[in-house]
Amino acid sequence: MTQQATKSAAIIGGGVIGGGWAARFLLMGWNVQVFDPDPEAQRKISEVIDNARRSLPGLSDVALPEEGELSFHDTMSEAVAGVTWIQESVPERLELKRKVYQTLQEHCPVDAIIGSSTSGFKPSELQGCATRPEQIVVTHPFNPVYLLPLIELVPTAQNSPEFIAQAKEILTEIGMFPLHVRAEIDAHIADRFLEAVWREALWLIKDGIATTEEIDNAIRYGFGLRWAQMGLFETYRIAGGEAGMRHFIEQFGPCLEWPWTKLMDVPELTEELIDAVAGQSDAQSGHMTIRQLERARDNNLVTILRGLKAQDFGAGALLNAQDKRIGEPAAMPADPSQPIVTIRRAIPLDWTDYNGHMNEARYLQAFGDATDRMMEIVGCDADYIANGGSYFTAETHIRHLDEVHAGAKIHIETQVLLGTGKKMHLFHRMFEGDRELATGEHMLIHVSLETRKASEPAPQIATALAILADAHAKLPKPEGTGKAVGVK
Amino acid sequence: MTQQATKSAAIIGGGVIGGGWAARFLLMGWNVQVFDPDPEAQRKISEVIDNARRSLPGLSDVALPEEGELSFHDTMSEAVAGVTWIQESVPERLELKRKVYQTLQEHCPVDAIIGSSTSGFKPSELQGCATRPEQIVVTHPFNPVYLLPLIELVPTAQNSPEFIAQAKEILTEIGMFPLHVRAEIDAHIADRFLEAVWREALWLIKDGIATTEEIDNAIRYGFGLRWAQMGLFETYRIAGGEAGMRHFIEQFGPCLEWPWTKLMDVPELTEELIDAVAGQSDAQSGHMTIRQLERARDNNLVTILRGLKAQDFGAGALLNAQDKRIGEPAAMPADPSQPIVTIRRAIPLDWTDYNGHMNEARYLQAFGDATDRMMEIVGCDADYIANGGSYFTAETHIRHLDEVHAGAKIHIETQVLLGTGKKMHLFHRMFEGDRELATGEHMLIHVSLETRKASEPAPQIATALAILADAHAKLPKPEGTGKAVGVK
Repeated sequence: MTQQATKSAAIIGGGVIGGGWAARFLLMGWNVQVFDPDPEAQRKISEVIDNARRSLPGLSDVALPEEGELSFHDTMSEAVAGVTWIQESVPERLELKRKVYQTLQEHCPVDAIIGSSTSGFKPSELQGCATRPEQIVVTHPFNPVYLLPLIELVPTAQNSPEFIAQAKEILTEIGMFPLHVRAEIDAHIADRFLEAVWREALWLIKDGIATTEEIDNAIRYGFGLRWAQMGLFETYRIAGGEAGMRHFIEQFGPCLEWPWTKLMDVPELTEELIDAVAGQSDAQSGHMTIRQLERARDNNLVTILRGLKAQDFGAGALLNAQDKRIGEPAAMPADPSQPIVTIRRAIPLDWTDYNGHMNEARYLQAFGDATDRMMEIVGCDADYIANGGSYFTAETHIRHLDEVHAGAKIHIETQVLLGTGKKMHLFHRMFEGDRELATGEHMLIHVSLETRKASEPAPQIATALAILADAHAKLPKPEGTGKAVGVK
Repeated sequence: MTQQATKSAAIIGGGVIGGGWAARFLLMGWNVQVFDPDPEAQRKISEVIDNARRSLPGLSDVALPEEGELSFHDTMSEAVAGVTWIQESVPERLELKRKVYQTLQEHCPVDAIIGSSTSGFKPSELQGCATRPEQIVVTHPFNPVYLLPLIELVPTAQNSPEFIAQAKEILTEIGMFPLHVRAEIDAHIADRFLEAVWREALWLIKDGIATTEEIDNAIRYGFGLRWAQMGLFETYRIAGGEAGMRHFIEQFGPCLEWPWTKLMDVPELTEELIDAVAGQSDAQSGHMTIRQLERARDNNLVTILRGLKAQDFGAGALLNAQDKRIGEPAAMPADPSQPIVTIRRAIPLDWTDYNGHMNEARYLQAFGDATDRMMEIVGCDADYIANGGSYFTAETHIRHLDEVHAGAKIHIETQVLLGTGKKMHLFHRMFEGDRELATGEHMLIHVSLETRKASEPAPQIATALAILADAHAKLPKPEGTGKAVGVK
């Protein structure tokens, strides 16, 4: 990155929201000066920053700037000295906010931006009695502020175009997406949706229709997955098929008049409104056909679902439970004389790369899964690992023999080359049908998860491994064993 | 999987929803018998099934059952012969649906389950004039049906507990999550939320506050990401901090009475309602502390965001744009005599595994990224690849020297061992500070993306590679080059 003078931001009011802002600025290289009268502020903000340090930097595939410096100040005047940005996240009381701005503006640089985290107040209300209203703007974030990119940037006519442009630039610089809300309304945009759903949810609970858990499941196993990637209108555009948004809204519009909810003040679906929705949707997504949108949606959904699967959470936990139901339990083969089929699966959509085929790292992921399966077969399963023993891979040699694409059904055959003492030496061969795609040769070492050092496996594992190694020793050595890169 | 007699499902009414059901059953091993009077039905359903074949099987890490058989039928009586499940997805007109049930029940097995995809009708309305009302139940899916697990299962007192249990079992078997809606209401549960948001969105467009694209961005860059994994209440439970849901609702409850929207019939926030919400939330999430929930949420969000990044979509596209802004452009080094730092980054949360450290496949992912960077440096960049040339990895040797954890800052130094003709032989060394974590030795072959065969690189690439290879030839061979697995 290009070196630049470190800029400073003042955080007025800590807590979860102020702390999230502090973390964003800090981890993106800004110095952060905090003012918060809460005696617990330092602890609370540090906890949020710890969470952010754990999660934010790894989002990038390049190094972030060096962390800035964090300081805590006893007065607002000290906290705002020399800053470029001031973020106000004090409690949602208009009088309090106005008082804070008065103090801030007595001491802060006149060209600093004062952003408010308010979810409810309009910027004109905040600017009300200010000395320099043009310096104040709504910049409403979403929790966790250090991970979610959305900022509702709501200016008024008091804010100059240059001021707004600079605010957008700084928000973008710290990794956020400034959504320029062109007309101020109560609760901006996103919170109107949250409020609408919140009210509806409270009715459902009050009327005994659903519990909090049932409501969460109704969201996260269904439309929540759609909204993480496309939102409302692009999703419905697809539902309209090749006829697009106009078809969708003409088809579904009338349903709005059904007596479905307790909240029934709906806009009349005039030709004008239909035109507006359809036209805006064309401008938004018209560069992609419905078929392309469908594929993008499915790629995104598969990626999200498989990601949640790796975390064993939400819809991903459902998929893991399904695998457990469908898959055969790991067991020593009745006839140990042949290589063991350790993996049978289809190549997921998210395993392919810019070359249009399975990415090299996913070959190793599949071989790693084959190794995990072999570990389970010899008794190194989740229980054993929870008790402190495991195998770590020390060395790997992969030969890529042929390409393979998403959807292809592959299997992996595994031969034990050595299984004695701390060592487990495996040879995996990956096939699509009869076509050999790759081989993976792996040396694993049994370790104690406490000492993280090599250790002897439990006797039952040593025994099982020896049975397979002895039986497989009678098989021919597979082609490619013991080879080094570039050596014939 | 255990072998079982293949079961059959009838799909009454194709289209996007019926086609999605057909795909689910088919890919989970059921035979599928379709009835749809639309002359285009076969084409439309086949398109949906093609999408499903591309995306669904790879969701599983084990092989799905063999696909069932798909057949199209001219009459309902033929389509329902011998089936276990009948899914009705005909247009949303009550009289039509009732007529369909009459015909179905004249011909179908009496113990088959008739599920309706209706989003609007209550099951008692569907059962109204039926011969055997106890056979009919609402099973409302979400598009795309072949990927989203949610099914709203809405029975009435007419349906026996055994019938409901069997319906749940079958839905689970085909990979769905049956959400048992205990009391029938118009629009069930999820669509009430969708309706509420839809109405609010139409107001915003009608009043000129936001466009469809701005609304989608307000969702997918913010709360949509939260709702893909936790839903509404578990997210808010975290926002309440250690004091949990009761604190949240007591703090935010009053906001419900603000004049924020045009839809203002809100439930009164009585002690009783607060108790219900807080108690249900405890039952749902009380087994995890707020700190644990925060970490689970952040793990999920990082996983989703990085997944979308790989797809270059939504919030992931924002992150890619940020990397481009922050990262240095690839360029030949001014001094080519030293190994090149190809990667500087932090280890993401989603790169660790059950052993608590970075998973072996992620080492190769990082080395693969280092190789990509080296390709860019010598001129094999996105433009060059778009013009039909690229490098494919033929062979890889990894030595895992030490563990590394999420959040650690790593860098990779790359030495060109050979760069002549079609070959590029690279040696990567991964470090955390001075601590060497792994080495990766890789043989790459230049290919034509058209023929998928080895080919000569463009002259400018050959020249750049030769400069680096010549300069790096004067460096000592790094330890571990030319080694085979298990060979000292």
